[in-house]
Amino acid sequence: MIKKKLAPWEVLESTISYEDRWLKVRSDRCRTPQGSIIEPYHVIECSTWVNVLALTPEGQVILVREYRHGVRQILLGLPGGGVETTDEDVSAAIKRELLEETGYSGGTFFSIGQSYANPSNQDNTVWSFLAVDVTLSQEQQLDEAEHIEIVLHDFISFHEQVWSGAIPMQALYLATVGFATQFILRSTHPSLQPIRTQLLHHGS
Amino acid sequence: MIKKKLAPWEVLESTISYEDRWLKVRSDRCRTPQGSIIEPYHVIECSTWVNVLALTPEGQVILVREYRHGVRQILLGLPGGGVETTDEDVSAAIKRELLEETGYSGGTFFSIGQSYANPSNQDNTVWSFLAVDVTLSQEQQLDEAEHIEIVLHDFISFHEQVWSGAIPMQALYLATVGFATQFILRSTHPSLQPIRTQLLHHGS
Repeated sequence: MIKKKLAPWEVLESTISYEDRWLKVRSDRCRTPQGSIIEPYHVIECSTWVNVLALTPEGQVILVREYRHGVRQILLGLPGGGVETTDEDVSAAIKRELLEETGYSGGTFFSIGQSYANPSNQDNTVWSFLAVDVTLSQEQQLDEAEHIEIVLHDFISFHEQVWSGAIPMQALYLATVGFATQFILRSTHPSLQPIRTQLLHHGS
Repeated sequence: MIKKKLAPWEVLESTISYEDRWLKVRSDRCRTPQGSIIEPYHVIECSTWVNVLALTPEGQVILVREYRHGVRQILLGLPGGGVETTDEDVSAAIKRELLEETGYSGGTFFSIGQSYANPSNQDNTVWSFLAVDVTLSQEQQLDEAEHIEIVLHDFISFHEQVWSGAIPMQALYLATVGFATQFILRSTHPSLQPIRTQLLHHGS
């Protein structure tokens, strides 16, 4: 058997199998480098996503608590959402999302990592941010059907509870916690020094 | 304004908007605790997913390198997949996936954490595993259209490259790397001692 090198599939044809305001499914007819035809291969088209581990000057992480209908559970999560066409860039998008969902703003934002939500069947990238010294500046700006509670949580105990499984979370948020931890361990930002010292002390 | 406590939405009606062998979209008509009607709310029905950070006796992590059509990139990832109806439990599912995708088996498996792929729009949970002392026992068992390369990688350098962004990954795998790191730091399993010592030395 001759094995060919890994290479992208050739897309022979694309059709839209489902589309409304909330969901768009593109279905491709593909040819692999080995010559196999794969059809249909569904890709869910999504906007770029952003989320943030945002810290107050007191070192508290800002969490959002809301009902998630996919799994029918009330979960803690990080502020975040999709990049909109009116956002200048991903950094503007995460500042807007944080302000809308929590009312917090200001401080300093760091782009700390990127991941994929589901690279086999979704086309979007997820940007993880860390924000330090954000402060409460206004009320939440929620849609009528949105209901989001704000929960402040000590970062070190949050970190421990996330990885021990005591706070069940979306993998996209866990990725951001991982990126943030490594960023904090390597950062010299003065606001991060107390947390950095605690992280090193806890052997995390 | 009277704010009601967070509570699950009531599902008034469910229809299937799209279904084939690869994708099932359920669309719900929901009533929120505040009385708003949300319609349609799409949920992509998925099987439970599993993935594993599998280590050889030499402390190498077993990675799979494959083309992911959603983002049209060739990416490194962890072995994993969906739980099948023939799998006795999630532990059996991950052992089967590891063997099929890589040919490695044996060793000891630990269930180290759970996360959600996308709790707002998907109904599935993801189980993360750590495996130690797995060894090559047979050839890969791939479908005709599958093409997966096996890459062995020193764990410590893998850990550093993942969080520095040098190895772009799916968030579900990053969650598993995070769970595995914390598990290794707290484990007394003799096979994990060399990696644990290196992790502590690197301040991770």
